[in-house]
Amino acid sequence: MKHLLALSGLLASAAVAQDATPTVAQGAQAPGPRVETVASPNGAITVSLTTDGDGRALYSVARGGKTVVNPSRLGFLFTDARKIERGLRIADATRTSRDETWEQPWGEWRTIRSNHNELRVRLMETSALGRVMDVVFRVQDDGVGFRYEFPEQPNLRQANIAEELTEFNFASGGEAFWKPAFLWNREEYLYNRTPINAVGTAATPMTVKLEDGMHVAVHEAALVDYSSMALLRNENANGFKAQLTPGAGEPKVVKAGPFNTPWRTLIIANDAPGLYHSHLMLNLNEPNKLGDVSWVKPGKFVGVWWNMIKGDWTWARGPKHGATNANVRRYIDFAAKNRIPGVLVEGWNVGWDGEWFGNGNDMDFDRPTEDFDADALAAYAKRRGVNLIGHHETGGAVSHYEDQFDSAFKFAADHGERVVKTGYVADAGQLERRMPDGTVKREWHEGQWMSNHHIRVLEAAAKYKVSIDAHEPIKDTGLRRTYPNWMAREGSRGMEYNAWPGKNPPEHEANLVFTRMLEGPMDFTPGVLSLKGSGDSDILSTIAKQLALYVVLYSPVQMAADTPENYAKYPQAFKFIRDVVVDWQDTRVLNGEVGDYVTIARKDRNSDNWFLGAVGDEQPRTAPVTLDFLDEGRTYTAEIYRDGEGADYRTAARHNIAIEKRTVRKGDRLEIPMAPGGGYAVMFRAGRQ
Amino acid sequence: MKHLLALSGLLASAAVAQDATPTVAQGAQAPGPRVETVASPNGAITVSLTTDGDGRALYSVARGGKTVVNPSRLGFLFTDARKIERGLRIADATRTSRDETWEQPWGEWRTIRSNHNELRVRLMETSALGRVMDVVFRVQDDGVGFRYEFPEQPNLRQANIAEELTEFNFASGGEAFWKPAFLWNREEYLYNRTPINAVGTAATPMTVKLEDGMHVAVHEAALVDYSSMALLRNENANGFKAQLTPGAGEPKVVKAGPFNTPWRTLIIANDAPGLYHSHLMLNLNEPNKLGDVSWVKPGKFVGVWWNMIKGDWTWARGPKHGATNANVRRYIDFAAKNRIPGVLVEGWNVGWDGEWFGNGNDMDFDRPTEDFDADALAAYAKRRGVNLIGHHETGGAVSHYEDQFDSAFKFAADHGERVVKTGYVADAGQLERRMPDGTVKREWHEGQWMSNHHIRVLEAAAKYKVSIDAHEPIKDTGLRRTYPNWMAREGSRGMEYNAWPGKNPPEHEANLVFTRMLEGPMDFTPGVLSLKGSGDSDILSTIAKQLALYVVLYSPVQMAADTPENYAKYPQAFKFIRDVVVDWQDTRVLNGEVGDYVTIARKDRNSDNWFLGAVGDEQPRTAPVTLDFLDEGRTYTAEIYRDGEGADYRTAARHNIAIEKRTVRKGDRLEIPMAPGGGYAVMFRAGRQ
Repeated sequence: MKHLLALSGLLASAAVAQDATPTVAQGAQAPGPRVETVASPNGAITVSLTTDGDGRALYSVARGGKTVVNPSRLGFLFTDARKIERGLRIADATRTSRDETWEQPWGEWRTIRSNHNELRVRLMETSALGRVMDVVFRVQDDGVGFRYEFPEQPNLRQANIAEELTEFNFASGGEAFWKPAFLWNREEYLYNRTPINAVGTAATPMTVKLEDGMHVAVHEAALVDYSSMALLRNENANGFKAQLTPGAGEPKVVKAGPFNTPWRTLIIANDAPGLYHSHLMLNLNEPNKLGDVSWVKPGKFVGVWWNMIKGDWTWARGPKHGATNANVRRYIDFAAKNRIPGVLVEGWNVGWDGEWFGNGNDMDFDRPTEDFDADALAAYAKRRGVNLIGHHETGGAVSHYEDQFDSAFKFAADHGERVVKTGYVADAGQLERRMPDGTVKREWHEGQWMSNHHIRVLEAAAKYKVSIDAHEPIKDTGLRRTYPNWMAREGSRGMEYNAWPGKNPPEHEANLVFTRMLEGPMDFTPGVLSLKGSGDSDILSTIAKQLALYVVLYSPVQMAADTPENYAKYPQAFKFIRDVVVDWQDTRVLNGEVGDYVTIARKDRNSDNWFLGAVGDEQPRTAPVTLDFLDEGRTYTAEIYRDGEGADYRTAARHNIAIEKRTVRKGDRLEIPMAPGGGYAVMFRAGRQ
Repeated sequence: MKHLLALSGLLASAAVAQDATPTVAQGAQAPGPRVETVASPNGAITVSLTTDGDGRALYSVARGGKTVVNPSRLGFLFTDARKIERGLRIADATRTSRDETWEQPWGEWRTIRSNHNELRVRLMETSALGRVMDVVFRVQDDGVGFRYEFPEQPNLRQANIAEELTEFNFASGGEAFWKPAFLWNREEYLYNRTPINAVGTAATPMTVKLEDGMHVAVHEAALVDYSSMALLRNENANGFKAQLTPGAGEPKVVKAGPFNTPWRTLIIANDAPGLYHSHLMLNLNEPNKLGDVSWVKPGKFVGVWWNMIKGDWTWARGPKHGATNANVRRYIDFAAKNRIPGVLVEGWNVGWDGEWFGNGNDMDFDRPTEDFDADALAAYAKRRGVNLIGHHETGGAVSHYEDQFDSAFKFAADHGERVVKTGYVADAGQLERRMPDGTVKREWHEGQWMSNHHIRVLEAAAKYKVSIDAHEPIKDTGLRRTYPNWMAREGSRGMEYNAWPGKNPPEHEANLVFTRMLEGPMDFTPGVLSLKGSGDSDILSTIAKQLALYVVLYSPVQMAADTPENYAKYPQAFKFIRDVVVDWQDTRVLNGEVGDYVTIARKDRNSDNWFLGAVGDEQPRTAPVTLDFLDEGRTYTAEIYRDGEGADYRTAARHNIAIEKRTVRKGDRLEIPMAPGGGYAVMFRAGRQ
């Protein structure tokens, strides 16, 4: 039952409640409600903010004159105060513009252009509470970011947020590429490909391909001191609303005083490659806070790891302990011989012997096992021009880790570890946080407390000039700009799933590029040239595809995941891994469709060489490319690693590879067929100009 | 990254994580894990409980030897302790059986048979915590209920539940009939009809029609001191997991000491009518706690209400105030003349003049407005053989209401109000609960605190022999058995939506019967014979369908919702409303398909008369029935109210009605065509035997 005074709002609300496209109702008083609009620098994208007859703030997005996002709500539910949603008016609107370029210390591009028009709208409640909520839109030519900003105000001294009410009402149907949120295995699910109106509750990035072919990727930027957003289906045909990750029996987000939320981002492009070329999330992040970061060193690594993942070695001490002096020395030798600068060692420390999964209170990050002579190995590595990569597996005992920050990172630094891989192996909602009074809270990997924990890790590591590769992490929202020692993370299904029965399907990486990889680097750990998982099981890939992944899946720390013994069996293919670099000055996605195929070319940051990688899915495919990214007037030797005759991920022919050299120039065309589950990789060695 | 010790569990988990049907993995130790099974009394339904290699408890359900629910998880996340999920073993299993009949003081059937086999399994953690969790299954021939029971134990003195981990993994695809959960407009959404794997997050009841035609309805029974469950898509093809309603910045559920959860229920039937005939939820509820409930009186009512809903009158005081002495006397006269025992009056009390929506702190439930002489009107009603129906609209100020329980219900009783309609008009998550220290918590309509509030209302009302019709309520889970003064509730989109622009579509009621109506009575408020909403807008129904709704949509308190003036225009049709009863001794769903059509026959509790109602959807339809429910050897006069020539919900012909009489006997066939948006109603007057 509703009161007539609220009816006018309900007219709009009822329209929204149907499956019809919601329209912005005119207010009861003439003239119409205030509308504030901002366009991208090139004018193609426009964002509008208005209020409806019920004082609800609604934003909408159009591109090329066509609505992409229908009027969608904004606001917040609180656990201890009225929500901010209805009864708002636009009190003020200011516009600014900014066009600048900035340099990444490492990354897929050296120079990034940040060009946006900004609209800042002050919304004010007309009720006695009179709370104020600013919404700031930044519009680039390739996307929109918006966030909420709450100024200091007497009636919102502490925001105990029960839920954020942001909606994303797509204006049309289409296909969605998404993975589920809030499930036990955290981020490690395959991507689903369904109609938009068949999505469950989705994690971000979620990528949609609308009926007219427009691609939109929903995500967030600068997730700082806030809980990660998932997308819940609302009552509109293709509509979603934010669903934040829970706290531990607390409000989802607690903010004292004035605050900003993360940016909600929508990359909008004509095609899948256009999504990848956007720098929207990076541009919305704060600049580098760490100052000199010359100690952050991209590089490849091998590791005492894959054998444990396959079950041949153990992390725990014992007869099959992986992290032994002998094993590690052998990996150091292999790395040195192949000019691979890093050697990851897992299971090097005390704490692995019991049930550590979700139970890491025995982990000690400055106590090696007896068979791991850290000092000697570090010295040996140094002599051989290699650095050990440290490993802090928390087993979910996060406070226990925080207690050890200083000793852990000092130990890492003392042993030449420029990079530490961290881990939070525990089921969703099981991270252990110890309160000052000794009680325990069980936190979510994507919750507010963990968003802050990760920053504390970076700061602790930075003191010792250590960089971080976080596994079982929180989603990447571009904070590598602000903390350039946050080099990589896992946060999706990587190569390790190919060691186990539930193998990644051939389309997996073509899904990842246009979803997960939009957020930032992934320590996917490619390059298992043996194409074998545990128990001699077959990986659903060709060998050439494994090489392509070094270019297709970006990470500044890129693993050669297989064992030295296996690499010895594939020397020609392995040459590509030896040659490929991990730091780029330019990246071009030459073609691609989400979940089907992608071809990416990248230019080495430190030379004139280019690299190219292409992967398909379970179908054979040729995706021709024109080499117009090459420098004018220069000859290149293209070293091509491609699927050989009859190659197929389903058969023993998955190892068939053809390696050839060609001379190429800018403008040449490359038509390399990809096998089922296949791909190809190319190194373009720059000749003289 | 995962440890080998956990790998075996991950093998099962990884299988679950794919889109494949999960299987129960055998434990690493031979022989296989313990499996406990229980069957329905007729053996058709079997339920099995076992544990997988990771010690996860999994239940599954089969019917006729065919799996209906694949192995599905059980367990709980806590905010301050490890979850209970893995590392469980079956410590004990006991079986009991029960077959009894019991009588409802009012309802759709007089006598209910409760016949089940019960399996009680004690699950115990193998870890040091060693917590114990019992799962109790009760299996009827038409469904399964299961709940968790936690005995007194040292390591679970208080359960701060972050989430319940119960899964429902349907073994096949099919169609789902569902409405969204956790949205702003609470329960008031239309039902969607989608493939099961296109559901968003769904409220219960959710009804599915599997590929082989089997119908399953998921819901819960005895929602007491606990938070309402919704269904979140999990990673399985047709799988869901429980998602409980939030607390207010607290755990979703807090339970001190030993406790039981509500029953999770699955009605399983060959067809839609079979779902309706199940008494599963009622049988799982505790028997009547209130003792003598002869003061609970089913009956019809009219009300000073529809004119406010349409905007012609106001709840607030003023020139168009509805609840005036003159208006109410006129409604009392109309009710008396038509032997309708109740007159609802809304807007009778002080508190409506401001912005009461979500803001009911001015509501006073023993202070009438100046133009509503409660004493005089109550006396007049009594003289005319009519009772006023009270109205407690909280506007979401729930603590403010609780403060007034005694005065409010005393006032009601003193004015002959045997029934009070309550209301909680406020958006989702906005109910105001005042804590002892004066701070406010914002609660959800379906949260734990509100589950308890509603019981407090019933207890307070029972002291004064008042019954409750709750609007904007919590879902019905069969508690009318335990508290027979909980007569009805809204909790879905009722007739009022037909007053507003977003009209209910013709299929709405055929959806409701097999979803919402499975949970219990709905105060839908049918019978708007004018077929007009606000601003002269047309309701998408024929007039005959309005009559059918009195039989099709069950409520012990059934409104004739239109105005006396409008009823005066349709005396012949209105006769059915005068004649129809609201309390039944037997109910038979003769045919029906979810969202398409349904035909229901009911026998008057207090005579040998039968009534029948049938509704269709937007399609014309004839759904023949055989009158084999009539008594043997008796003649009946069937008074049939059916769509007239050319009737159609889309045109002025929606008012075309044909009324006829026939003599019928048991076994006769009835073939009455229903118009688009139509239906028909029949009174079978029993002749002599």
